[in-house]
Amino acid sequence: MAKRAVVLLSGGMDSAVCLAVAQREGMETWPLSFDYGQRHLLELESARAVAAAMGVPPSRHRILDLGRVFSGSALTGDAPVPLDRAAEEMARDIPITYVPARNLVFLALATAVAEPAGAGDLFIGVNALDYSGYPDCRPAFITAFEQAARLGTKAGVRVHAPLAHMTKADIARLGASLGAPLHLTLSCYLGQRPACGRCDACQLRLKGFAEAGMADPIAYAGGAGR
Amino acid sequence: MAKRAVVLLSGGMDSAVCLAVAQREGMETWPLSFDYGQRHLLELESARAVAAAMGVPPSRHRILDLGRVFSGSALTGDAPVPLDRAAEEMARDIPITYVPARNLVFLALATAVAEPAGAGDLFIGVNALDYSGYPDCRPAFITAFEQAARLGTKAGVRVHAPLAHMTKADIARLGASLGAPLHLTLSCYLGQRPACGRCDACQLRLKGFAEAGMADPIAYAGGAGR
Repeated sequence: MAKRAVVLLSGGMDSAVCLAVAQREGMETWPLSFDYGQRHLLELESARAVAAAMGVPPSRHRILDLGRVFSGSALTGDAPVPLDRAAEEMARDIPITYVPARNLVFLALATAVAEPAGAGDLFIGVNALDYSGYPDCRPAFITAFEQAARLGTKAGVRVHAPLAHMTKADIARLGASLGAPLHLTLSCYLGQRPACGRCDACQLRLKGFAEAGMADPIAYAGGAGR
Repeated sequence: MAKRAVVLLSGGMDSAVCLAVAQREGMETWPLSFDYGQRHLLELESARAVAAAMGVPPSRHRILDLGRVFSGSALTGDAPVPLDRAAEEMARDIPITYVPARNLVFLALATAVAEPAGAGDLFIGVNALDYSGYPDCRPAFITAFEQAARLGTKAGVRVHAPLAHMTKADIARLGASLGAPLHLTLSCYLGQRPACGRCDACQLRLKGFAEAGMADPIAYAGGAGR
């Protein structure tokens, strides 16, 4: 019997590629998405479309409503999303798009869902290289979480972060090679389709595709990405 | 200015005493409760009454709705609550009233709420002595969680578990000495008022009051506790 894995699926590119990696490793994947009042609610539509395109039965894709638990971030509408920032500026500090304790909460809830579902593995598409200063994308955090979950549950979980050390260019290439439906993903922090092309997420994504020598299959406002 | 602390408040005796401890330490307390489809929804009424009795303004007491995220436990209605178990039986194994990853989820959400509220301290009323086999009540889990939160957020949180090494008798005595409104608390796993007196939680509570030489101020079915 295939091992079951809960895969955090946001609707963005990284988590779609992460889902493809989990499937390549032979896992029966149980995607988990969150509605937390994010600006980019279109993300959840993308998440549904990605899961369906990758053959996940709808009954296995769970979307948890977290209401307004998160606050204090540009992604939850508590501040404007910064646009047109230079790469050095993105790298400098924890950005206003940081959502306090988001991955801590997501992994904790994934652990809660995993145990009764018989899943011993979690996949999360965090990325420490192109990461713009989010503390909860660091491998050290993932390791510490795994330890807390091991001590705080019956059986613990293995947390896989297969993209942790990849560049966005690597991720785009890997996604294409695994047949991940990159055209269905949405990364834009403004939650726009066509994507804005100007927020940190759009810029990092466009730079990644450019470095990979690939065309980004999604549409951008004003034709960025062509 | 008083330091702010998020206090996990279930409506049971331990968390009420924990709130009293946080207040004694001079904290401005921000109680946090969860609606997760627990059998004992009356607990949330108790939590509200306890917070109000301890002078917490209603605007500072948050109740998060987690829908049906937890499953696989007697406390969420997925199995019957065991009654009339002997003490040795309670101590033997992880009981069916264990809710997978519950304290991991509660602490993660408390961390998410704490950061934008400017609270650097969390209080949780876990108890490792009279604990009936719950892995997420162990001090080692609390320490590991603190480490994960430190690495996964901007500033981290200090997690206080002041009851960790106390017996239920100690907790009852401490609560009485601090003026915690024990008469408003509800511990019964069946969520009954009067309390059933037969589930593990009622039995541990009654035993604690008896050992402390105190009368439990809540009512029990059939007059247990008198």
